[in-house]
Amino acid sequence: MKRIKLVVAYDGTNYCGWQAQPNAVTIEGVLNEALSQLLGEEICVIGASRTDSGVHSLGNVAVFDTGTRIPPEKICYALNQRLPEDIVVQDSSEVPLQFHPRKCYSEKTYEYRILNRKIPVPTLRRHTYFYYRSLDVSRMQQGASYLVGRHDFKSFCSVKTQAEDTVRKILSCSVEKSAEDVVTIRITGTGFLYNMVRIIAGTLISVGIGEIQPQAVAQILEQKNRRAAGPTAPPEGLIMMKINFHKNS
Amino acid sequence: MKRIKLVVAYDGTNYCGWQAQPNAVTIEGVLNEALSQLLGEEICVIGASRTDSGVHSLGNVAVFDTGTRIPPEKICYALNQRLPEDIVVQDSSEVPLQFHPRKCYSEKTYEYRILNRKIPVPTLRRHTYFYYRSLDVSRMQQGASYLVGRHDFKSFCSVKTQAEDTVRKILSCSVEKSAEDVVTIRITGTGFLYNMVRIIAGTLISVGIGEIQPQAVAQILEQKNRRAAGPTAPPEGLIMMKINFHKNS
Repeated sequence: MKRIKLVVAYDGTNYCGWQAQPNAVTIEGVLNEALSQLLGEEICVIGASRTDSGVHSLGNVAVFDTGTRIPPEKICYALNQRLPEDIVVQDSSEVPLQFHPRKCYSEKTYEYRILNRKIPVPTLRRHTYFYYRSLDVSRMQQGASYLVGRHDFKSFCSVKTQAEDTVRKILSCSVEKSAEDVVTIRITGTGFLYNMVRIIAGTLISVGIGEIQPQAVAQILEQKNRRAAGPTAPPEGLIMMKINFHKNS
Repeated sequence: MKRIKLVVAYDGTNYCGWQAQPNAVTIEGVLNEALSQLLGEEICVIGASRTDSGVHSLGNVAVFDTGTRIPPEKICYALNQRLPEDIVVQDSSEVPLQFHPRKCYSEKTYEYRILNRKIPVPTLRRHTYFYYRSLDVSRMQQGASYLVGRHDFKSFCSVKTQAEDTVRKILSCSVEKSAEDVVTIRITGTGFLYNMVRIIAGTLISVGIGEIQPQAVAQILEQKNRRAAGPTAPPEGLIMMKINFHKNS
């Protein structure tokens, strides 16, 4: 028996999120079915980031246990032949049997991408959030700076969360605008609460249009109240970029 | 009666190309129907670039004549409400009645985008050509340099063409690789033959993998024979970027 780690990219447009559910097509459900068929065993993966409906990934991580004799690094190629074109496993490798992608220390990076112009661009519509009003990127950068560090992010967490401890550590949060009018919020942290990146994005958008002062982001953190923060930005702009696991964890 | 110019962006994935055809969904057909409904007149647009099935656009141009009293610059907003989300008009403006987008001097820019890595990326699958073998970008740049200038491009033209004169002028042809493994061929010229950009892309890919020497591109031009060039690269990598019309033309 060995434990295999997969790096999973997907276009989340047509999925009801990561987590397997009855009567809904999910990334986890499709992976479990393709792996079970490929390996001839019943496989249940454990995912690192349980992304919401419509959210995308370039580097989510899942693990599963198998007795297969297929070499670990070849599993991704065999598996991709059984997956639809909107889910593509980027890498497969063996990890220690005790490795658990949600229980060990990791640094996760997400991007939230906003197409900020007067008229939508059809080729970007699935992977950016189209936002009409002009965003002041330097204001957003200033607002983002208050989020970096260890804070109680209760204000930036869906009230539907089951988390008791809402303290998380953000390692970096940058905001940049590309030549193609895409404003990208890139955020790295050691853990995220339910809807946290989308609430941060919605709040920084409110900062970018002048509805919230940049320095008020610090006060929003202090209030520990979801209603103090901005709206939850829609899922199509969110991409799970990568997860780094430290060795010996 | 006035003539209106539209700048038209589209995701070509679900269309049988630009040109209206019976029993096929095309960009031109959808535009004609939406404009006719909006304006209450029968409208037939004239397109600048009749892109093929599956090809995308950020800046194709079409004109039509109308007696409407809607201000020209407002037509795009009213029209977009009647168009599907994969066709979005970026701009509308009045032009002289004699302006014809295929008969007057213009400089067209196309990009051909190749995702060049071992494993596909699902979020890029519709707007890049996935190519597994490693491309040598500096070889491709050298090959591209032979295409710039006024040449007979008969070797780079589908044999299905009806063009008698196959001399065209290429103003620039660059090749660059992005951090996301996308190799972009960007080409600007005053006119293009049927399938010309896709045959150039297919030929530069052959140069990039070492099957054609960069300096052999000059000889391919001289041979004036389609079979001398590389294959026609698939449509999903091609994007009509923009068209500049010179004044007084």
